[in-house]
Amino acid sequence: MKRNAARPENAHQARVLRLLRGEGARSRADLGDIVQLSRSKMALELDRLAGSGLVELAGLAASRGGRRSAMVRIASHLRFVGIDIGATSIDVAVTNGQLEVLGSLSMPADVRDGPAAILDQALDLLGKLRADGGAGEIRGVGIGVPGPVSFRDGVSIVPPIMPGWDHFPIREALSQELGCPVLVDNDVNIMALGELHAGVARSVDDFFLVKIGTGIGCGIVVDGKIYRGVSGSAGDIGHIRVDDYGPTCACGNTGCLEAYFGGAALARDAVLTARSGRSPYLAEALSERGRLTGEDVAAAVAAGDAAAVQMIRDGGRRVGQVIAGLVSFINPGLVIVAGGVAGLGHTLLAEIRSVVYQRSPPLATGNMPIVLSELGGAAGVIGATRLISDYVFAAP
Amino acid sequence: MKRNAARPENAHQARVLRLLRGEGARSRADLGDIVQLSRSKMALELDRLAGSGLVELAGLAASRGGRRSAMVRIASHLRFVGIDIGATSIDVAVTNGQLEVLGSLSMPADVRDGPAAILDQALDLLGKLRADGGAGEIRGVGIGVPGPVSFRDGVSIVPPIMPGWDHFPIREALSQELGCPVLVDNDVNIMALGELHAGVARSVDDFFLVKIGTGIGCGIVVDGKIYRGVSGSAGDIGHIRVDDYGPTCACGNTGCLEAYFGGAALARDAVLTARSGRSPYLAEALSERGRLTGEDVAAAVAAGDAAAVQMIRDGGRRVGQVIAGLVSFINPGLVIVAGGVAGLGHTLLAEIRSVVYQRSPPLATGNMPIVLSELGGAAGVIGATRLISDYVFAAP
Repeated sequence: MKRNAARPENAHQARVLRLLRGEGARSRADLGDIVQLSRSKMALELDRLAGSGLVELAGLAASRGGRRSAMVRIASHLRFVGIDIGATSIDVAVTNGQLEVLGSLSMPADVRDGPAAILDQALDLLGKLRADGGAGEIRGVGIGVPGPVSFRDGVSIVPPIMPGWDHFPIREALSQELGCPVLVDNDVNIMALGELHAGVARSVDDFFLVKIGTGIGCGIVVDGKIYRGVSGSAGDIGHIRVDDYGPTCACGNTGCLEAYFGGAALARDAVLTARSGRSPYLAEALSERGRLTGEDVAAAVAAGDAAAVQMIRDGGRRVGQVIAGLVSFINPGLVIVAGGVAGLGHTLLAEIRSVVYQRSPPLATGNMPIVLSELGGAAGVIGATRLISDYVFAAP
Repeated sequence: MKRNAARPENAHQARVLRLLRGEGARSRADLGDIVQLSRSKMALELDRLAGSGLVELAGLAASRGGRRSAMVRIASHLRFVGIDIGATSIDVAVTNGQLEVLGSLSMPADVRDGPAAILDQALDLLGKLRADGGAGEIRGVGIGVPGPVSFRDGVSIVPPIMPGWDHFPIREALSQELGCPVLVDNDVNIMALGELHAGVARSVDDFFLVKIGTGIGCGIVVDGKIYRGVSGSAGDIGHIRVDDYGPTCACGNTGCLEAYFGGAALARDAVLTARSGRSPYLAEALSERGRLTGEDVAAAVAAGDAAAVQMIRDGGRRVGQVIAGLVSFINPGLVIVAGGVAGLGHTLLAEIRSVVYQRSPPLATGNMPIVLSELGGAAGVIGATRLISDYVFAAP
């Protein structure tokens, strides 16, 4: 057996690993109390975990009255890797076994360049991180991609903005290259896991995260776990109808949410607004660069440009209408707004809140916060390491 | 301890009871194999269950080679009661321990008469059923009501169409009257449970049921269990926005789904259609009775009245638009359409299907049927007995 394929042998070992992942070093005695094993049985399980390179000793604990108990922690050379492929960027992070980020790198990239080029670039970033102090034994890789995924098969499925990726064996390719387990998920699901692990949803078991970027998608957490739906497409909310007579969407229908407020829609509306003469800020940006993006709109809003603010309020209202429906349906404990356009911040959030709190049932919204992502761009890579560590630290 | 409060003492006993509930009589040997207990241990657990009056012997099984094993079944005197309070009706059923309906009664009633009058009428129906061959020991009662419920507390919460019911202790009142455990849920949740137990969703773990009646609501099943949301309001879809400029709803907002196609909206539109001269059928019905209901529209559709068909198609389109959004969001394995208006049948269903299959992602709708309720009016009472039997047959 390859050493870096080692996994817990039973539920006790899995429980110990997840505890140590969340809390750092603990004494053998504490672990025995929590997992409810005798000292001798716990010692045996820890010896086996140490033998497979998953945990290590870390000195002696303070005395609890008798012999001092040994401290145990996840092996310090153990590494997880999180990769977040966006439509226009790649983020890679290396963490230790406690999912503390040891290093991370980001670069612009066009997902339409196809899987070979994009995964090569991700591996380049990983190589740099490892050369730059991120050495250690990679025990697993989680990766998110901006489109529908068959989680079971580890491949993209008919991804609309990822030509060339359809049924590409992402999991197999990375797993062969790096010699460790790999899990592939939708980019929004790993962001939701990131917020669950280390962000604004740390104490929330039922919530959803709406990502507004190039596309619009949603990660759903039910009872502390990602809910993927029957065929893995849960959360695909970008094409929910807002209006019968809205703009035509790339999907062929009219009035989809994404056709109103995805990245492409925002860029289109920004150009129209610039040309209409209603926004001096956007007009200047357009004449300088010949094109506009969501970031330009964000900058215009920050500069107090009234027409840009109006664009964001209109878009926020549409997003709010869709979120209000989903809140009525699923009655979550929290709604998180994330993604590039979320950089538009409180102007956007205020509009979304106003619509949701007006339209959803009071019983559902009474104690339900609507907040911006806390981890921002880091949510994806942290969630990706959470995803793969849940798998690596699971009982067989 | 009161005898009819007896419950399983451990997970093995609970497993045995649920098996017997679903499959009728089984031999001791079979049960031991399935639950993975030795013959002697299984015999002990079954003796304890028999002692508490939960199971009984039912002759000897065919030989499996050695001594013939005793057959065991749920005690034949054991009864569950399901009560389904609608806006305009009360349904009561008595089942045996396998949830086979031994007798059921239904009567028209106005939920606005308040909890004292309505629960008295339900108890009257139950009394008639018990006098008429439904004797036996009631081990639990499940009841559904047409409004928001605090499942934990067993009370209605600010129910819009149930004046006088707010915070009325339904569970406590019935439990004291009948001396057995009682659980209270939303009427749509118990219908979904009914279809899960004995209807069209028998083999489906993830689905939702949309009830179109006086109001419009939705029961959500995730992983074989009702999903109630964080504050119990999940599935409250009647006020999801269809349009910004639609009719004003009783809730104060405009363009809610219910304002387009709930029972009241349908009656309102039927009168308008009758008066417009576009529907000879509805005009005649209106002049005869002075009022119209959803049933009149259904009859007009059955008689081939073009204006009535158009009403149902318009309404079906709105319902379909909302369902399409929910399908995109949660990616269920099945959607069930139920309730009084579902009596409109295939005209309505065809319109809903057309919208959902056009608007939801192909990945989500590929293998997803959209069907009418199989149990019809019986779904609620059967689901209510499933709800309470899940509780009574659960491990402590």
